[in-house]
Order: sequence, then structure tokens, then C-alpha cells
Amino acid sequence: MIGSGVSIVAASMVRFGERFESSYEDLMVDVWNALLADPEGDLTPDRVEAAWLSTALGGLIRREAVTGASLADPLNFYPRPVTRIENACAGGSDAIRNAAFAIAAGIYDVVLVLGVEKMRDLPTKASLIAQRGTMSHLWWHPRGATSPYLFGQHATVMMEQGRITREDMALVSVKNHDHGVLNPNAFMRKPVTVEQVLASPPICEPLTVLDCCPTTDGAAALILCRSELAHQFTSAPVELVATGLATDTMYSHTKPIFGEQAGPTRAALDAYKMAGIAPSDIDVAELHDCFTVAELLAYEDLGFCERGGASAWLRSGAPSLGGSLPCNPSGGLLSKGHPIGATGVAQLCEIFWQLRGEAGERQVEGARIGLTHNVGGNGQVTCVNIAQRM
Amino acid sequence: MIGSGVSIVAASMVRFGERFESSYEDLMVDVWNALLADPEGDLTPDRVEAAWLSTALGGLIRREAVTGASLADPLNFYPRPVTRIENACAGGSDAIRNAAFAIAAGIYDVVLVLGVEKMRDLPTKASLIAQRGTMSHLWWHPRGATSPYLFGQHATVMMEQGRITREDMALVSVKNHDHGVLNPNAFMRKPVTVEQVLASPPICEPLTVLDCCPTTDGAAALILCRSELAHQFTSAPVELVATGLATDTMYSHTKPIFGEQAGPTRAALDAYKMAGIAPSDIDVAELHDCFTVAELLAYEDLGFCERGGASAWLRSGAPSLGGSLPCNPSGGLLSKGHPIGATGVAQLCEIFWQLRGEAGERQVEGARIGLTHNVGGNGQVTCVNIAQRM
Repeated sequence: MIGSGVSIVAASMVRFGERFESSYEDLMVDVWNALLADPEGDLTPDRVEAAWLSTALGGLIRREAVTGASLADPLNFYPRPVTRIENACAGGSDAIRNAAFAIAAGIYDVVLVLGVEKMRDLPTKASLIAQRGTMSHLWWHPRGATSPYLFGQHATVMMEQGRITREDMALVSVKNHDHGVLNPNAFMRKPVTVEQVLASPPICEPLTVLDCCPTTDGAAALILCRSELAHQFTSAPVELVATGLATDTMYSHTKPIFGEQAGPTRAALDAYKMAGIAPSDIDVAELHDCFTVAELLAYEDLGFCERGGASAWLRSGAPSLGGSLPCNPSGGLLSKGHPIGATGVAQLCEIFWQLRGEAGERQVEGARIGLTHNVGGNGQVTCVNIAQRM
Repeated sequence: MIGSGVSIVAASMVRFGERFESSYEDLMVDVWNALLADPEGDLTPDRVEAAWLSTALGGLIRREAVTGASLADPLNFYPRPVTRIENACAGGSDAIRNAAFAIAAGIYDVVLVLGVEKMRDLPTKASLIAQRGTMSHLWWHPRGATSPYLFGQHATVMMEQGRITREDMALVSVKNHDHGVLNPNAFMRKPVTVEQVLASPPICEPLTVLDCCPTTDGAAALILCRSELAHQFTSAPVELVATGLATDTMYSHTKPIFGEQAGPTRAALDAYKMAGIAPSDIDVAELHDCFTVAELLAYEDLGFCERGGASAWLRSGAPSLGGSLPCNPSGGLLSKGHPIGATGVAQLCEIFWQLRGEAGERQVEGARIGLTHNVGGNGQVTCVNIAQRM
């Protein structure tokens, strides 16, 4: 348990995708209004005392420091405090972590966590993902170290070790697109076949386009509160029972090993310890499948199966809807999309809906404990959050 | 009091300035080693459980999201958690605020807060300050709204209202440069005269170069811990008794009034309430004098004098060393410099040294309570922190 108890009482997201009709501010206003429209409880704008904003791209697309005021202005939230957090692709989950600490410290009763990203307004060539590692002014930055390259290295090593096959990766894409078809908020709502994944255009050996998550616009938001107050806002609160954040080596050339990631493992162990649970207690998980191989790595890093067991575990059907531990029922980053700052927040939205039995066609029956796994860079920063139905 | 008690037990900074010989990573390593070199206590690297990194420029100079790992790597800090916070020029103080919440929540006993910025590696034309408001891709962003322009508007209104004169602003520059001469870590260690300020090159009417803080490289760091443990690390801990963060309107064209700032006033009132003190209890303050007029505004926004009383209060000598409430004994942003993400952290370093009687020639005698005032943008985000000698 985090301090004296932190609960989630409302969640919202916009449809992820190519949202040319909505500005950065529009997306924020949409998720905020959706939170307030929840008819069940007593959530009025004035009850929310502070906010944490997660967004990664301020400096790149907007070409300025972002500041918390970029949330306060469209939401008419001033003079209330807003902290902006950026922690690469794990920023959304870390914003939840910091907001939870403020509640656990007794500083605020009710806070907003909002993640937002506009990534498709620039041509791909100028996008963050294309720039990643290629435009740094620092001499020691490995040239060409884009994200597919970083994860392609893991895939190459794991294939060489005979731990996974090319088809295993394709099967992750198939599974998550099958799940995403059931999610009205997903970006890529189309089933794909193993053959289509293998035949799609190559990105970085051995990854093809359908092994990679799409560049995405989107926003998601959560209301956290002191657990004692949760029933004022909803009859079915979900407790945020644990949060773990860990770092790992920054660069590929200093990485001691490929095919496993120390940071995600550490973040998960810290979260399991805080929650007092084991991986076997988890009923549903949202994993950071930025690339198909990343989900296979996650099965092992998180202890869902033993080291080297990802292929067999995947093929057993365990992580599919209907399996023993459905992973990415939302469609994950591969199908739902990956608006960087919003991703960790949207992962916990999905867990919130799953634990309340509100996930419609993609519902995991009887889910009581859910986990989110949100990885920045090549495992440089990982945040794992765990929630439980009250 | 913040939760169950948060104390500052160590502080360090590098000399601010034009630091071409030191990289972003070098500056971080320097302040980290300086913290650990403190001979008094029991502070070893392994005692520090988590970190908060404040830096603003990642997206602009490094052209990538920064992530906490950019601290973990040079400090060999992994796998420990690192959160990166960006909140414009107030990020350093907000990083302290979030770190304090985590301690108050009982999550960590000992944490690091580190602020760092490399601003002088790019030509001025490409710098953040030049870009501010001029290169945004967003259609509604006022063109030409650089920082001097934003603060020049306040100055123009206050002069028109007869509240301040051009010479009052110059006197702030004179005072803070006089203080900075006494600070070995200050960038601009030269006294200036009113005549020199008035005759220096114009930047934005009525501000001249010597009304503006310099673009600066620098880093600063603090160790915070649970107050119960503070005496393990030092015989003279300083308690962080309060923190207040507030937002204000994002844009000049939506600002209801000039010549006062709602955000800083709100942040200060929240901090005074949390600390249970009045402005008259404060013995020393570090103010956000990014421009001379900003310090005059701060006197009034913080309640150091009545609204409209800044000129008389300044000329009374109250905010000078030897006065009743010395402001910016460090030299402030005008003389010490303003490496954006590091500024709020360095402000609290100065207060830490002042409250411990370690400020050398610029010591404020008998100081027991100190305040930092750290403003982002045109008052869009303000964080006020208050510390007290135990």
C-alpha cells in the first residue's frame, strides 16, 4: 500500500490515432470533460486540488519548455498547482507515481493525472521517433540508434539464443491487434495475420512495420484521491496499491547484456514488494509492447514466466483474452497506439475499467488485481503500477 | 510542516557561468561528488534511494526527451528511480516539492534533487530564451513574445502608474551585483552603477542588458531526508517546512492585469499557510529576479511590502545585505546566473547555507527562516519553498 491509501475513482481517454482535428489543448479538454461527465459521483472541477501533466514532446514539436500552465490554461485550472513530468515513454506512469505520493503525504485529497501527446502534426522525418538518437548534439551519442534499432538488438540476441522465433514476435502482433479490434479507443482496429506481419515492410532487422507501434495522437486522464474519500466519487473505487520506478543503463554500448532488462525487473520487484503480491496474483496486465519483442521480454522481466519461457508462455494462450493472465486486452501500444506521455495513464485507465468490469467485449472476467508496465527508451526508465479492486 | 517532516542535510553547486569545459554530465557529477565530499556526516552514495532531476532544455539542445536515466548514467545511480521534472524556470523548486512529498509519504528516507542546465553551447540566436514564443508551431502563440518583452510589459505599466521609476529597476541590478561580488559561485561578479545599467544596450523597452539575467550553464543539488534521520548526516539540518506551487494565465493576451501576478501571490500564501508563518517572519529570501522588474513585483506579490510599495521598500535598504529582509544575498539570477533547471535548487542551496551561517561574506546574521521564490514564464508557474533552521 502506498502510504495511507490512494484510490482511482475516474478514468477517461480519447480515441487514439491520427487526430488532426484536435489540438494538444483540445485533447486535454476532451479527457477532462469526460472525467467530469461521469454521472455516478460527486466529482466537480473545484474538488480537484492539483494536477500532474505527462507529455514528452514539448521541446521537440512546440519548441519550448512546456510547463504545467499548458494544462492549467485550457482547463481553466489556475491558480492550482500543475507539475509537468517527462520520463521518456514512462512519463505517464511516473506522473501517477508522483501524484500518488502527494496524496499519501496528506498534501492533497483529490488530484488529476493527465497524459497528452500530439505526434502526427510533423512529417515522420521530423518526428521524435525518427530523431531519437540521430540528432543529438552530443558527440558520444550512437548515431542511428533509433528505437527499432535498440529493440531489434534484443530480438536478434534472443533469436540467436534459440529463445524466440520470428513467428513468436509476429504472434504478439496478431494477439494485440485481435484485442484492439474490441477496443473502440484503439488506433489500429484491424486484425493481422502472421503472414502479414512477416511480409510487412522491414524497419530494422528483424522487425517489420507490424512489429512496431504507430506514432499516435492521444490523451488519457485519471482522478486519484485519498482512499477514505473514494466512495464520495464512485461505488467501485480501485486502489493504487503499489508503484515502482527503476533506471537502467542509458546506452546500448554500456549495456552488459541483451535479451533481458534489469530496469523493468527491478521496477516490478519493487512494486510486488510494496503490494505484497507475487506475479501469480495478477489477473490482467497492460504491457509496454512498443515492439513485439518488448512484450516477450516483459513476460520474463516481470516474472510472468521463467527466463527463456516467453515463447512457450505466449503459445500456451496464457496472455490472450480468455487465458490465465491476459496481457494488453486494450490492444496495447501495437494496436491502441502510443502517444508517449499519455501511454502510462491510458494503461491504468484500461486496468481501472477491467477491474470494475467495464471493459465490454475485451473484459477479463473476474479481474481483481491489474498491473501496468511502462518502459522509457531501451529500458532506461521503467515504471510498474499495480491496482486492486476494493 | 510537510507531512511528518522533511529536512535538507547537504547542498552543493558548481560555479555558474560559461562552462564550455564541462558537459551536462560533468556538471551533474561535480555537484554529486561535492555532496558526498561533505566530511561531517554519514552520507554515502548507497544511502540515497531515489532522485528528482530538473532540467528544461532537453528537447531543445539535446533534441530528445531527457528521461531520468540522463542522471542515472553519469552518477552510476541505476537501478534507482529518477523522475525528470520540467516546469519552465520553476522546475528546480517543483522537483524539491515532489521529492519532499515522497519522503513525507514514507516512501523514501533519503533522496537527491539535482538541477542542471547547459545553455551556452548554442549561439544566442538558437537559445531557449531567444526561441521563447518565437518559434512555436502553434498558430495562436503571440509572435515575438520573448521573456524580456513579457516582463517589459509589467515595467511599462508600473512606470505608467507611477509606482516605480526606471532608476528603481536599475537599483535592483546594482544591489544584486553588489551581493554577487561576495559569492564565489556567481557568474557576473562585477559591481554595476545605476548609470551603467541605464546606458547598457536596450533589450526591450524599458529593459536594458543589465536588467536581464545572463544565459548560464550550471548545476546544483540537495539531499533531503526524513527529519528523524537528519542528525545522522549533519549536526545542523534545515527543515523544509513548506512548499507552494501555483499556475497563472498562460498568455499575455489573456492576462487580466499587469503590475501584479496572481500565481506567485497564491504560491506564497499557500506556503505561508503550510509553514504557519507571515512574511514578517522571513529573515532571508532568494527571489526570481530574471529581470529587475521581476524582483520589484516579487516584493509586492510575496507581501514583503504593500502593493505599490516596492520602490520605497527597495530604497529603504530593507532588501540589501544588512537590511531587515535581505533579498538575493547570492546575487540572484541577475548576478549569479540562471541555468533554468538548476535555479530553484541553487536558491534553496543558498538558503541552506544562510540558515547554517555558512554564507561567508554575504551572510545574513542570525537568519532562522528563509524563502525561495521561483517563477516560470511570465508567472505561469511559481513555486515558493520555505526552510527553517532546526
